[in-house]
Amino acid sequence: MDVLVVGAGAIGGYYGGRLAQGGACVSVVARSDYAVVVREGIRIQSPAGDFHFRPDRVVREAEDLGRYPDVILVGLKVLEHIRPEELIRGAMGPKTSVLLIQNGVDVERPVAEAFPENEILSGLAFICVHRTAPGYVLHQDYGRLVLGRYPQGASSTAEKLAEIFRRAGVPCEVTASVVTARWQKLVWNAPFNPMSVLCGGASTAEMLGHEETENLVRAVMQEVCAVASAVGHALPDDVVDRMIADTRTMTPYKTSMLLDYEAGRPMEVEAILGNAVRIARRHGVQVPHMETLYALMCGISRK
Amino acid sequence: MDVLVVGAGAIGGYYGGRLAQGGACVSVVARSDYAVVVREGIRIQSPAGDFHFRPDRVVREAEDLGRYPDVILVGLKVLEHIRPEELIRGAMGPKTSVLLIQNGVDVERPVAEAFPENEILSGLAFICVHRTAPGYVLHQDYGRLVLGRYPQGASSTAEKLAEIFRRAGVPCEVTASVVTARWQKLVWNAPFNPMSVLCGGASTAEMLGHEETENLVRAVMQEVCAVASAVGHALPDDVVDRMIADTRTMTPYKTSMLLDYEAGRPMEVEAILGNAVRIARRHGVQVPHMETLYALMCGISRK
Repeated sequence: MDVLVVGAGAIGGYYGGRLAQGGACVSVVARSDYAVVVREGIRIQSPAGDFHFRPDRVVREAEDLGRYPDVILVGLKVLEHIRPEELIRGAMGPKTSVLLIQNGVDVERPVAEAFPENEILSGLAFICVHRTAPGYVLHQDYGRLVLGRYPQGASSTAEKLAEIFRRAGVPCEVTASVVTARWQKLVWNAPFNPMSVLCGGASTAEMLGHEETENLVRAVMQEVCAVASAVGHALPDDVVDRMIADTRTMTPYKTSMLLDYEAGRPMEVEAILGNAVRIARRHGVQVPHMETLYALMCGISRK
Repeated sequence: MDVLVVGAGAIGGYYGGRLAQGGACVSVVARSDYAVVVREGIRIQSPAGDFHFRPDRVVREAEDLGRYPDVILVGLKVLEHIRPEELIRGAMGPKTSVLLIQNGVDVERPVAEAFPENEILSGLAFICVHRTAPGYVLHQDYGRLVLGRYPQGASSTAEKLAEIFRRAGVPCEVTASVVTARWQKLVWNAPFNPMSVLCGGASTAEMLGHEETENLVRAVMQEVCAVASAVGHALPDDVVDRMIADTRTMTPYKTSMLLDYEAGRPMEVEAILGNAVRIARRHGVQVPHMETLYALMCGISRK
């Protein structure tokens, strides 16, 4: 399988490297990190064993690949100034599939609208991974992937990718309803990510350690369930209780949004909150707690 | 009029000093600032002219005054560990009135319950004033007072105090419905104070400069109006629009909560949000936006 990874950051570097380990031919579009990656590749430090990812080719722009890959893997953050549909255009052949491994809900739409004839795969990564320097990725924990065709259905490409990932030791599940899986992941992300920032740098344990903040976590989770249900992605009845219970058993954890905030990097406010709030409004679902978090995160993002 | 001021901070120093200027006999209970205040009094720097407040007596505890004053002025912040009813007990005679100049709603209850036979006056200060060092107070702007008998009604003491304040150049209005005035002030404080902190240090102009945050300001204001109405203090229909419009004309402004946060001082979260949220719950009024701000402020206060 011929794969082009767009973005040599944490997600692209880690999962691109795993696909190469699993036997795919993997090239990389690197921009700010081009010089290092073309010379050195990407070194991944991982509890499962460090490894060195040497891409088949490293290019500055997708079109420089000079051929149409089977799959373009997009591991970019979801930020307003990053337009994945523009970044991949130069390598999009008629049979190229796109795999978006990104956070949030409704993040596939720009790419799906730009390439209505192509297969879009959507992926959720349950992983702690960071780019520590150009060409260096630190994999801290976890790594499971959930993949599926967007907006739904079976995909032989997804099955093949899952096979390659599993060969490289990445637990990978293929789902026929990836959008439902996205809503389910948002049940966790929508409260914990913004609240960790807004509560002044709180860990998951601190947020669940006090009645007022735990109640807010639950209220936001219930709102996400209500929106998911309104758009045809009803989640299990016990999802909120189960996520709260699971989170209590986790090592106290800094969310990705908090890490971004502390490092002065832009945060994925629209993917995690804005898109869901807009979908709620379009469907007449009341989400006042989530709206409040969204407005405050818009405020803090501007500072 | 014989007045004892409890708390030699910004509010106590400024308004105590003005009462002395207006002709009252004013003593002060000072604790951490005792040594400076007993020796030097309190120096107030003000755009209306600097002045030097020499208290009649400076004591460490209310009971050290050795007599019952006509009025005890409490200018302390509303914080859990500060118990005004305990601090004033030693000077509370049968005819002593208490004037509480404090922020928030439902702040009079502990004192009113501890001294059911005494007259409680409640006061709202519209002022920018800070204690810059022991014995030093910086009056930056404004200064108007609204006073009234708690929970309602006429008071000849309030009229006399207003007379003395006015003699010293302090605009002072006496109201028969001071609790309504507190709710009205809360319409402004409940959104702007916490949001200025939660949005990462935003000024009033920044909060009103963007749709999402302006809408949140309005939503919280509407919730305060709904609670006020449920407890018999209906506010004018146009209060929200009027306050937004007035705030737009103000010089961009750092709220008192933001100043406290930036200085690492405790914030008046319960007076400004917690009390109102609990009253809303008791009366079955939905206040999800305010509840969200309250939970986040509880979280940030613990950090």
